[in-house]
Amino acid sequence: MCFLRIIQFECKDTDKKLLFNLWSSLKYTNFNATIQSIDLMKKSIFLFSFLVIVLNCKETGEHQAVESDSDSGHIIDSSNEKAEFSIVIHGGAGTILKKNMTPEKEAAYKAILEKSIRTGYDILKNGGTSLDAVTKTINVMEDSPLFNAGKGAVFTNAETNELDASIMDGKTLNAGASAGTTNVRNPIDLARAIMDNSPHVMMAGNGAEKFAEEQGLQLVDPSYFYTDNRFNSLKRAKERETIELDHDDKSAFYDPTIKDYKFGTVGCAALDKNGNLAAGTSTGGMTNKRWGRIGDAPIIGAGTYANNATCAVSSTGWGEYFIRGMVAYDISALMEYKGLSLQEASKEVIQNKLTKLGGTGGIVAVDNNGNVAMEFNTAGMYRATMNDKGELTIGIYKK
Amino acid sequence: MCFLRIIQFECKDTDKKLLFNLWSSLKYTNFNATIQSIDLMKKSIFLFSFLVIVLNCKETGEHQAVESDSDSGHIIDSSNEKAEFSIVIHGGAGTILKKNMTPEKEAAYKAILEKSIRTGYDILKNGGTSLDAVTKTINVMEDSPLFNAGKGAVFTNAETNELDASIMDGKTLNAGASAGTTNVRNPIDLARAIMDNSPHVMMAGNGAEKFAEEQGLQLVDPSYFYTDNRFNSLKRAKERETIELDHDDKSAFYDPTIKDYKFGTVGCAALDKNGNLAAGTSTGGMTNKRWGRIGDAPIIGAGTYANNATCAVSSTGWGEYFIRGMVAYDISALMEYKGLSLQEASKEVIQNKLTKLGGTGGIVAVDNNGNVAMEFNTAGMYRATMNDKGELTIGIYKK
Repeated sequence: MCFLRIIQFECKDTDKKLLFNLWSSLKYTNFNATIQSIDLMKKSIFLFSFLVIVLNCKETGEHQAVESDSDSGHIIDSSNEKAEFSIVIHGGAGTILKKNMTPEKEAAYKAILEKSIRTGYDILKNGGTSLDAVTKTINVMEDSPLFNAGKGAVFTNAETNELDASIMDGKTLNAGASAGTTNVRNPIDLARAIMDNSPHVMMAGNGAEKFAEEQGLQLVDPSYFYTDNRFNSLKRAKERETIELDHDDKSAFYDPTIKDYKFGTVGCAALDKNGNLAAGTSTGGMTNKRWGRIGDAPIIGAGTYANNATCAVSSTGWGEYFIRGMVAYDISALMEYKGLSLQEASKEVIQNKLTKLGGTGGIVAVDNNGNVAMEFNTAGMYRATMNDKGELTIGIYKK
Repeated sequence: MCFLRIIQFECKDTDKKLLFNLWSSLKYTNFNATIQSIDLMKKSIFLFSFLVIVLNCKETGEHQAVESDSDSGHIIDSSNEKAEFSIVIHGGAGTILKKNMTPEKEAAYKAILEKSIRTGYDILKNGGTSLDAVTKTINVMEDSPLFNAGKGAVFTNAETNELDASIMDGKTLNAGASAGTTNVRNPIDLARAIMDNSPHVMMAGNGAEKFAEEQGLQLVDPSYFYTDNRFNSLKRAKERETIELDHDDKSAFYDPTIKDYKFGTVGCAALDKNGNLAAGTSTGGMTNKRWGRIGDAPIIGAGTYANNATCAVSSTGWGEYFIRGMVAYDISALMEYKGLSLQEASKEVIQNKLTKLGGTGGIVAVDNNGNVAMEFNTAGMYRATMNDKGELTIGIYKK
């Protein structure tokens, strides 16, 4: 594929003309040679011409498919330049519409997005690791009541808060994840401890809380996660009892800004100065969830994936579809196995594959050159990115 | 890739000769035409020749890489024929050595493997679905104390049995998974109910048990899962306290046949007469596990994956590595994105990628033509397969 790429990029504007001229000259030139060898040569040249055209068309076709107009989010992809470091975050995707937002609320979201990403940016700028940048950036969002993670976690049907998180190290492909904890203040720290200090990748429930205690992580009374806003959302959800039976747009309005109880998660992906990628995701799950439901956030490959060979990805959206589509890993697989760029792979997975499956949500991702993708098929996604020049981009709505 | 394949298969024995002849004729033939056009033509032909050779070499190289000698298990891959239906099972992989096995024990394992697979075979032969075949086949193994699933589940550090399972439908890409249940007799039935009767993919712990109750699944007293054999294994594990801190070969001998406490899981993959694929996996987890550890068995994409476009896969092995490697989905991705056969993709993932990562275990898989793979990098894997002609193959050791 690599070779094809070179041909495509270097020849695509000229090759068809070249072939046409060549074919014409073959057709109309009289050679002083045996008829047989001329015939063989004509056929061979035509075969090769055909081959090159078909290959180029096929390649170009693939590119068009993923570059076609879509509900794409903001994509920053300066493929020709390798960034020294790079960071991107999301604070959840869903039916986020400007008409439901006050200027004050919008400013509050933007402020916390900026505070979060600057935390990671400073770490990366000072030579820190992408793992530290991801962890500390997510901590800021976990400590804010605005996002459905940490302090702002939504309530389960049993009026508890059960939090999930995961993190992955692109250098070692090591990973950590926790599911359904109720008293760990910053679940991303627990995911990190599981990765760094245990032989396991995933822990759940009381067992995970016990490990958090052994690791000396900050525990809180479960009431720490109480917020009026989230509790009211649960009450409304219970009143209507529409949990997950309705589709996105039909669902009740449980969040003042994300018009769906399925969404809201925070995540971060980063590239550090040593070329190491990392990604992490943290969530409070789904309002009114029951039966110990686990979404995609703590599932490596679905909610989070990082691999220095390709990219680092954090997902947010309707978790069930992200699990079935292996969304985070699928972006990496398309880059590794089909040679797609981060931008192409992200579009293909979110706008084509996930959408066809019926799923909604988005991802933020960074590749090993520091290119960033923020792709979603919902009305909005809280998002921000900073490059190594310190340029900040913040977005909420689609356009 | 498809086009390249055609070229490779149809021309690879002749294209280099053709190109050589062509190049020779170009070199030694005098044309009665303008020097310029001949020069252009020579250059162009050489460029095309080079292109075709490089492309063919690259393709051939890829094939060689995955077809190289390996510690492969048994592979039945009759690519030219499409089977009407097909089924394959595993009962765990690990350090299974003939020297540790009595003839009686070996016969017992073979008998239950045969009973299990004939259950699924009969369903498929009678036109039943692959989902039913997978579920019922796994039920037989879950009800046997010989395998680490259902009745034979191993004990956690807290002297409980916490069971995991997952299932996936290749037609719809729907999936169900349960983690850490203690009173559901057949966890694969719970995974199936989650897939069929809930909006969720994954449930855990008490919540999952509550759902099982609501669904009318057979619940048992947790003591149902008690077996002397597994309890003794736990005692030995605790005495040595080597849990997961040691590597495979250094670990204590906790199972009379699978010489490692990390292994032992059951799984099944099947293709039915309607061309639908399905896969399922069920396990008791890891002896002496704590902290609510979740392995790969209930993780869609790691322990189980099915997609009618490619294949159905069930994994068994050191779960942490199977999660990090997204083993089940990765086989499908290599088929879909790189055009590898099931056999090539399975070898690449188990013998190359998983092994490099440091992981041990295996998979059973069937593709949408009914070809079967049983690939592992351990000393043995309990396994069996039956084709649509009723031919049965049972294996335990590597050779």
